[in-house]
Amino acid sequence: MYDVAIIGSGPAGISAAVNLKILGKNFIWFSSRASSKKVERAELVKNYLGLPNVTGGELAWTFQNHFEGMNIKLNEKLVTGVYQTEGHFTLLAENENYLSKSVILCTGVQAEKQLDGEEEFLGRGVSYCATCDGFLYKDKKIAILITDKKFEHEAEYLCGLSDKAYVMPMYNGYEINSPKAEIVLKNPVKVSGGMKADKVVFKDCEIDVDGLFILRGSVSPSTLVHGLQSNDGHILVNRDLSTNIKGLFAAGDCTGRPYQYAKSVGEGNVAAHSAVEYLASLK
Amino acid sequence: MYDVAIIGSGPAGISAAVNLKILGKNFIWFSSRASSKKVERAELVKNYLGLPNVTGGELAWTFQNHFEGMNIKLNEKLVTGVYQTEGHFTLLAENENYLSKSVILCTGVQAEKQLDGEEEFLGRGVSYCATCDGFLYKDKKIAILITDKKFEHEAEYLCGLSDKAYVMPMYNGYEINSPKAEIVLKNPVKVSGGMKADKVVFKDCEIDVDGLFILRGSVSPSTLVHGLQSNDGHILVNRDLSTNIKGLFAAGDCTGRPYQYAKSVGEGNVAAHSAVEYLASLK
Repeated sequence: MYDVAIIGSGPAGISAAVNLKILGKNFIWFSSRASSKKVERAELVKNYLGLPNVTGGELAWTFQNHFEGMNIKLNEKLVTGVYQTEGHFTLLAENENYLSKSVILCTGVQAEKQLDGEEEFLGRGVSYCATCDGFLYKDKKIAILITDKKFEHEAEYLCGLSDKAYVMPMYNGYEINSPKAEIVLKNPVKVSGGMKADKVVFKDCEIDVDGLFILRGSVSPSTLVHGLQSNDGHILVNRDLSTNIKGLFAAGDCTGRPYQYAKSVGEGNVAAHSAVEYLASLK
Repeated sequence: MYDVAIIGSGPAGISAAVNLKILGKNFIWFSSRASSKKVERAELVKNYLGLPNVTGGELAWTFQNHFEGMNIKLNEKLVTGVYQTEGHFTLLAENENYLSKSVILCTGVQAEKQLDGEEEFLGRGVSYCATCDGFLYKDKKIAILITDKKFEHEAEYLCGLSDKAYVMPMYNGYEINSPKAEIVLKNPVKVSGGMKADKVVFKDCEIDVDGLFILRGSVSPSTLVHGLQSNDGHILVNRDLSTNIKGLFAAGDCTGRPYQYAKSVGEGNVAAHSAVEYLASLK
């Protein structure tokens, strides 16, 4: 059982990790990628105090050096579910369960919009996890929405299992090697069905499927944690960055604007301190 | 008329200034000292992301370099009052008035406790400003509470005006050169009086005076701004760092724990953005 689980490797997540390490807590840290693409892509950052005129790449490198220098390890795994169970949390990350007394969500804001019906059919024909649910669709007809090159091996694994796979890559330069794959270069807008999802809907047509896999770098907070209160796409937090769920905290862009490095780093710091206070209250 | 006035030169104040500069606002920035003593005194800071293992002195130097490199000027003046007047604020800083549409308080937490009666008699026998009110006590008997060597020239100016001055230095190594000064090495606990303050009270005795000057590096927020809501010594703020007074924001240690550099820098950043949003709403 961990004291704290952190989800997300942007500035807020790194800041939370660094602070928890200093505060001597037993924590585990997940992210689907080693560093934040959004930070890396920033051209010039002038307002992160102490590092004037850095590029996003330099900032990302400096932040990474900071946590690596403290022997903090990031687990490159996508967390697809956070469940409340008897006074603690269970996190599902690529087919394995992790138990933690508290959680800090630093999931950023999603660039990609959710599909209509995605949340509704999650677990009923819609899945985020190839290794968790792939075997359920052996010899069946599936669709795979894939948002990043790094998920291509998962897509190919799913294609191999399936009878036929409609693959929808949302980026350029895709390479999907499978005789069962049919590339569909259209944007799906909706997933629909009855008891289970059975249709992927496009603007001008639809495809019948047995299931839809969405391979995306992050899962929206409200999908991740059942019952988490949010407003306009942002997690509702109090001044101490606690949420409506006891023991669950949030920091960074996912808590709202302004989307700023300094805000995220500050919130990661505060959330770590609040989690430690919460842990003390459990004793 | 300025867009924004910032009070305080700790990490929150510097962060607010840097952000307002980038956001192209016309702001004025006050502090009674060039940099935060509290930052300078920190031994080792490990959790300010991007600058691992810096001393407080190095951090202060790095922050100062950041704003000086952007040609931002700090006005070394103590603000002793912030008044709301017809849709804007008037700041009183060492006998001069400054007008601003919005204000960001980054005043930190006070190490020194207020005296009993200090707030009650402010402006009625108690003053924070030698140059503003000194002439009112010409040839009178005054007490001077002085908390830092840097205020000694103000104390001597007051001694010179007075008939007699009881000087209470709250630090070691004081040098007050005035034939009218009598050094009192006791801690005052209270200032009392009727319509006006006329007594400084110690644990075991009291002194009759015509007025009391308190020369301190900062003025507590609730004294500074009439009607500002606070709780347990911290200014009450919303998530966007607005206070109960429209156009007035607060950031850093003055808004509450944890007292952390990253939190302060993040809050200075957010407060600057919120002030800019407020300015836009005025149009």
